[in-house]
Amino acid sequence: MKKQGKRTILLENPPCVLGYGSVVGKKEHEGPLSAEFDSYTTDSFFGEKTFEKAESKLQKTALKTALRKADCKPDDIDNIFAGDLLNQCIGSSFSLREFGIPFIGLYGACSTMALSVGLASLFVESGAAEKTAAVTSSHFCSAERQYRFPLNYGCQRTPTAQWTVTGSGAMVLGKAEKGVSIHAVTFGEIEDLGIKDANNMGAAMAPAAASTLLHYFEDTATGPEDYDVIYTGDLGYVGTQALYMLLEREQVDIRCRHSDCGLLIFDREKQDVHAGGSGCGCSASVLCSFVMHRFEQGDFHNILFMSTGALMSPTSSFQGESIPGIAHLLNIRKD
Amino acid sequence: MKKQGKRTILLENPPCVLGYGSVVGKKEHEGPLSAEFDSYTTDSFFGEKTFEKAESKLQKTALKTALRKADCKPDDIDNIFAGDLLNQCIGSSFSLREFGIPFIGLYGACSTMALSVGLASLFVESGAAEKTAAVTSSHFCSAERQYRFPLNYGCQRTPTAQWTVTGSGAMVLGKAEKGVSIHAVTFGEIEDLGIKDANNMGAAMAPAAASTLLHYFEDTATGPEDYDVIYTGDLGYVGTQALYMLLEREQVDIRCRHSDCGLLIFDREKQDVHAGGSGCGCSASVLCSFVMHRFEQGDFHNILFMSTGALMSPTSSFQGESIPGIAHLLNIRKD
Repeated sequence: MKKQGKRTILLENPPCVLGYGSVVGKKEHEGPLSAEFDSYTTDSFFGEKTFEKAESKLQKTALKTALRKADCKPDDIDNIFAGDLLNQCIGSSFSLREFGIPFIGLYGACSTMALSVGLASLFVESGAAEKTAAVTSSHFCSAERQYRFPLNYGCQRTPTAQWTVTGSGAMVLGKAEKGVSIHAVTFGEIEDLGIKDANNMGAAMAPAAASTLLHYFEDTATGPEDYDVIYTGDLGYVGTQALYMLLEREQVDIRCRHSDCGLLIFDREKQDVHAGGSGCGCSASVLCSFVMHRFEQGDFHNILFMSTGALMSPTSSFQGESIPGIAHLLNIRKD
Repeated sequence: MKKQGKRTILLENPPCVLGYGSVVGKKEHEGPLSAEFDSYTTDSFFGEKTFEKAESKLQKTALKTALRKADCKPDDIDNIFAGDLLNQCIGSSFSLREFGIPFIGLYGACSTMALSVGLASLFVESGAAEKTAAVTSSHFCSAERQYRFPLNYGCQRTPTAQWTVTGSGAMVLGKAEKGVSIHAVTFGEIEDLGIKDANNMGAAMAPAAASTLLHYFEDTATGPEDYDVIYTGDLGYVGTQALYMLLEREQVDIRCRHSDCGLLIFDREKQDVHAGGSGCGCSASVLCSFVMHRFEQGDFHNILFMSTGALMSPTSSFQGESIPGIAHLLNIRKD
């Protein structure tokens, strides 16, 4: 492992994805990626008594799927990296309680999937662990009532608002002869250009996305044309336009290579999700289904995957604060 | 870096503490460790408009102190590891926004100091970073109103309750010829023996503390007698007794070597803190002052430092859930 440039960490013996799993809710199952997910539930409660417990069950389900595909028992995993959007990350702590795996709790808002996979990869590469796992989730109903309004209130949504994905993605990483592997990780810094509209997360996260991507390109002396595709997590329609604009100022054009998980997971025309999908579960469930399937089918060999997060809380917004954003990036390859 | 036993990671070229800083509030300054802290404030708002902004300022102050002592600029730090107790960890994201350091957000409740220092050490040891920093905080007023009751309500406290420390500790780590260094890290698993009383965090965290400590002893084939002292984070009086009881079942007695940061920071007789201090800032501010000073004065050479966290939220408690605990351990030495 070595630093390349200022921010990028190169993994010289890149850890491989040994298994992955995804589970989503009804709306996500009705979207364009329907056939990609391992499983889905049409019940917002997922058989539990509360939305929060349902979210924990989403994580458990995704993790069990990833473990099964990796042919691993929980006991084979040295460390698990997880976090979610709920206060005190209870989605993760209550889902992982029963597995007995040493737990490294994260908070990166919707950037959690890239953050957790990045750290899990570093642990394998460095010899700190043999096998690791990464998992995150979000749930439309638990997020709405925590961040915005009670669902029953029936509040109207603004055009820039995004729809929190009900879903979870999990990945198991370890050494392997060949496979899809994590070649480089760039952890981002917090960026805040002063956006205060909590219904416009895309715009709040775009500066962080631009910053991390530009740092990565500089560190590695590469450009958009060197990658088959550049996935962002959940910038949605508004955030994507803002990202293009910010990159243009630096003479970087990613348009023909870029795709956003928040725009892939829903059909904006038909599914009434306004600016697109969001939430930790958005990039997690898309990575652990659609993206991995494209690798397996040979559609691409070298991509960038960058989850983006908005690090505010309802309290900070009520106190008049702007919204800090963050983005973490993975270079994923299959030779 | 290599695994020792099942859970412990040995750092073969142990990263050193290059600098550390602590800042506390009025009550902590009036306690037994008064002279140890770098700075304190008698104003709960720390010159800010809200308790949450005050908590962010605590982190900034501790970090700036640590950077100054390490003779570093923010730009010298490759990655910073931080988290806190506030919803969505806004204590950390808003404090670190201005530093421009790649940010890895954590949620480990009161275990955050050992978690962040552990990860920061691994990054240095593995070559992923040259210099890293770890910081966390808590604030009595922001924690009370978020987890329990509005302060103005004047609620009575139960005898098992602990007093959230207003304070922050920060540490800068890197390679150095000699100094206080991190030799081993054991990340703990989530333990939950069914405690449901949110006013008895000590008892909820004790099983995790026992589990991590026993795993470490087993992995390293050592026992309490091999260490000058074993610090726990914030078990307080009740949790400490529970830990002794749980360890006794395994024929391990740490009584003559054990000290708890939550019992060190306040005078339980005179300061009306019931079972002792708690909060991320408790073990952080004690580590980055008193503990580091003892090393510098040659009082000890080989210690264990284990922060403990309770991974519940008010929502999970309202939903009838028990309280999952976690504990992460560091072996800190000075040759």
